[in-house]
Amino acid sequence: MGNFKGHALPGSFFLLFGLWWSVKYPLKYVCRKNKNACYLGSRAGFQRLEFIEGIIKAVFALIGMIAEQFVPDGPHLKLYNYEEKHWDHLMNWQHATMYLFYGISGLVDVVAHGTNALPVALDRMMLSLAVFIEGFLFYYHIHGRDMLDFHVHQLLLVAIFGAALCILLEVFFRGSIVLEMLRTSLCILQGSWLWQIGFVLYPPNGRLEWNQMDHNNMMFLTMCYCWHYAFAFLILVAITTSFGGYCTDQTDFIINIFP
Amino acid sequence: MGNFKGHALPGSFFLLFGLWWSVKYPLKYVCRKNKNACYLGSRAGFQRLEFIEGIIKAVFALIGMIAEQFVPDGPHLKLYNYEEKHWDHLMNWQHATMYLFYGISGLVDVVAHGTNALPVALDRMMLSLAVFIEGFLFYYHIHGRDMLDFHVHQLLLVAIFGAALCILLEVFFRGSIVLEMLRTSLCILQGSWLWQIGFVLYPPNGRLEWNQMDHNNMMFLTMCYCWHYAFAFLILVAITTSFGGYCTDQTDFIINIFP
Amino acid sequence: MGNFKGHALPGSFFLLFGLWWSVKYPLKYVCRKNKNACYLGSRAGFQRLEFIEGIIKAVFALIGMIAEQFVPDGPHLKLYNYEEKHWDHLMNWQHATMYLFYGISGLVDVVAHGTNALPVALDRMMLSLAVFIEGFLFYYHIHGRDMLDFHVHQLLLVAIFGAALCILLEVFFRGSIVLEMLRTSLCILQGSWLWQIGFVLYPPNGRLEWNQMDHNNMMFLTMCYCWHYAFAFLILVAITTSFGGYCTDQTDFIINIFP
Amino acid sequence: MGNFKGHALPGSFFLLFGLWWSVKYPLKYVCRKNKNACYLGSRAGFQRLEFIEGIIKAVFALIGMIAEQFVPDGPHLKLYNYEEKHWDHLMNWQHATMYLFYGISGLVDVVAHGTNALPVALDRMMLSLAVFIEGFLFYYHIHGRDMLDFHVHQLLLVAIFGAALCILLEVFFRGSIVLEMLRTSLCILQGSWLWQIGFVLYPPNGRLEWNQMDHNNMMFLTMCYCWHYAFAFLILVAITTSFGGYCTDQTDFIINIFP
Repeated sequence: MGNFKGHALPGSFFLLFGLWWSVKYPLKYVCRKNKNACYLGSRAGFQRLEFIEGIIKAVFALIGMIAEQFVPDGPHLKLYNYEEKHWDHLMNWQHATMYLFYGISGLVDVVAHGTNALPVALDRMMLSLAVFIEGFLFYYHIHGRDMLDFHVHQLLLVAIFGAALCILLEVFFRGSIVLEMLRTSLCILQGSWLWQIGFVLYPPNGRLEWNQMDHNNMMFLTMCYCWHYAFAFLILVAITTSFGGYCTDQTDFIINIFP
Repeated sequence: MGNFKGHALPGSFFLLFGLWWSVKYPLKYVCRKNKNACYLGSRAGFQRLEFIEGIIKAVFALIGMIAEQFVPDGPHLKLYNYEEKHWDHLMNWQHATMYLFYGISGLVDVVAHGTNALPVALDRMMLSLAVFIEGFLFYYHIHGRDMLDFHVHQLLLVAIFGAALCILLEVFFRGSIVLEMLRTSLCILQGSWLWQIGFVLYPPNGRLEWNQMDHNNMMFLTMCYCWHYAFAFLILVAITTSFGGYCTDQTDFIINIFP
Repeated sequence: MGNFKGHALPGSFFLLFGLWWSVKYPLKYVCRKNKNACYLGSRAGFQRLEFIEGIIKAVFALIGMIAEQFVPDGPHLKLYNYEEKHWDHLMNWQHATMYLFYGISGLVDVVAHGTNALPVALDRMMLSLAVFIEGFLFYYHIHGRDMLDFHVHQLLLVAIFGAALCILLEVFFRGSIVLEMLRTSLCILQGSWLWQIGFVLYPPNGRLEWNQMDHNNMMFLTMCYCWHYAFAFLILVAITTSFGGYCTDQTDFIINIFP
Repeated sequence: MGNFKGHALPGSFFLLFGLWWSVKYPLKYVCRKNKNACYLGSRAGFQRLEFIEGIIKAVFALIGMIAEQFVPDGPHLKLYNYEEKHWDHLMNWQHATMYLFYGISGLVDVVAHGTNALPVALDRMMLSLAVFIEGFLFYYHIHGRDMLDFHVHQLLLVAIFGAALCILLEVFFRGSIVLEMLRTSLCILQGSWLWQIGFVLYPPNGRLEWNQMDHNNMMFLTMCYCWHYAFAFLILVAITTSFGGYCTDQTDFIINIFP
């Protein structure tokens, strides 16, 4: 959906997940250190959380897919316009495909953590694939746009492919707190940057539009992107530090593996 | 072979292997969990399977090579046309070279699993190299084609190089079920996408040809590629889930390594 | 700051850190081998060092940020020029952003090693991110410059992204002496190359300027870059060898992990 | 040296090392499996071999450097031509720089395996850097050449960067037979391809020159490159198999690490 809401909606989804993770993972980290300190620290407790997360992810993806299909100027499940012989609303279909993969990821989460029929590590693998496919579709999506439009989406791609790589590493280093924090920060970045894109490309209530061809705008937005990330990371560090004060043991997860 | 059959034949090979693996690896995974539950779960049983797979792979590669050489408009082992001073049927020779590496991979499988003269891990390394060489040859192969032709082959390259990387990881994380599932899904994707390429570039029984220059066709095919993958992955997850119902223990392979 | 000092100042910071590390890590390596041989070898001793390093890094970053903002032709914290409707001194703002991330990295070091509220491995992750962001900003920074200017900064990017990758590996292989040596050598390279860039682009006291369009200058500077690295590496090897003479045991860190 | 000998000489160096490794590593692999079977299997025996290899590598590098400097049309250590104000014989200087890094790699081997002053893993790290720098210099070296000239050197770069990556992996998975075999095969490939480049670009005794602009020549050479590799790999597999017949135990190195 090429308008402000079309960027704000997925942006909010990512922000919500990012902020939730920025509470969940530090908490999990503290609980793992101070065993017996809290209920959530148990393996079963966190497995239940992952199960619920999977359901929420699947529901959000379904909402996104339905919104893309049935907004007034959407395709309403029609893929090909036989009268005029061209594809119909390809943009919306592509966005719906992105949501589809997040939906599958949610489904895999539910099956992997609800039953023991799937290997647990498949949840990270599928999430990594979903994020990669999002980036992959975006990559061909933004072909041939105006300079500034192209640039802000290209910056988004850095966060997306970075997150895909980070989650792939999590398949092999599952439970590493630093990778979980990296993923969380990239997720917040993606969410806040989607809002920023909305403000830049579709300024709400009739504000001045950005000059698409000004090189200085590009340079400013690149820097602005870094500030978004600094902000995301600082929030995360602040939360972790405030939780981490309860820890009594300094040694962290990775260090235990490679002593 | 630049025609429908030339894409359908290797596509079928890949589909066959992909579907076989989508049965084999989940089965192996279940057997490893429930020891004593089945004959195939024994190390010897699976080694015999890998041995037979190697033979079949080598035979398929031989069929492919012979087909490329001795089809009516093939090179018949002639590489250089001395009369007209140019290389003869380079396309067919390149395809034959791709098959050659799969043949070597089959050979290495047979030697590594039939005798104990070669390190076992060499089978994955050689398969990774064979897939990489396939992508490498394709990369220079598709140089200078029409836009749509180029694009559908470029999408194929994503699956190919993805598979090569995945198999390289398997050298180091041998037996990881998530990597085996990733490889399987990419193999099915490659097979079904080769069929799709055949339908797009050489529509059988005189259907309408695709407009090579329409940007919307490109966008649709990119999305279509994702749907192929979603389909491949869902089949795989469905099979694994149905097998996985027999498992009693939740902990999977990777988790045991990095607890 | 597009002048000689603007390259010499950060270059000196990097050289200082690189040379300090080229003493610290070989020493740490020797101490770990010959336990009880020195005070610094204790875990607590090195943790205190990392703590102090974090403070110094944060202070240097602060100096850099203030210098970029308040030099005579700096932005003085003004980001947008409302009269002439354009961004103000974006270059200085971008440099300040680079310093900002090093500042955050210093802060994380201080918290992670001073308290036990943050996972220790986060210091490497944040340093890797800071170096990556430096490269990321440079990448868009040097867009559209003259050939030679572009080339010398592009060479710098190789050192920067190499260092970012190396430090990311350190998150997982913490304490590996070879990675620490690689990082140290790349840090020295970056420092000495920043000085070289200063001499090439802004020759001090009125020397002859370099011809920006001569392809031979480009080829010479590429080679010169390799000599810088050879020099950096040889210094490091010499220091390590002179320290390493005190070692009695040959087995090194990595070998112990993968015997 | 832009002539046939200038490609045949380094090509022979690489072939010699590659063929030597294709004997050494399979032998080492067999000896490690059948302990007490041979003298070379002892840790000390192989360390002595690495020491001697380092000396030979350093000597070869020295020969290469001297040859580049003192051939009749070489620079004779003169870097800048002050009369005509241009750099002198930059090609030869670049080649000498490539040899320099192999020389440093030989030196590091000698110190790391002769004394215990350097960490052992540094030999692989330095070799990886030497190979990377070779590729790095080649990359800027071949800028702006004719199409075929560019293409054959670009193919060489694949082997070079592949080898650099493989050796970097060896830093962390030291002693893995599959990585050692991959490195060996890429080294043979590089050697034989350098000979091929010599034959293509500087056909000896007045044979017909290759048409630099024929796209078919490019396609043939890409395929030819793959045949070189198939040949290199098959030789290696044949040698390993013939040695490996003496093995009694099937489990290989990697499998022991990740059981």
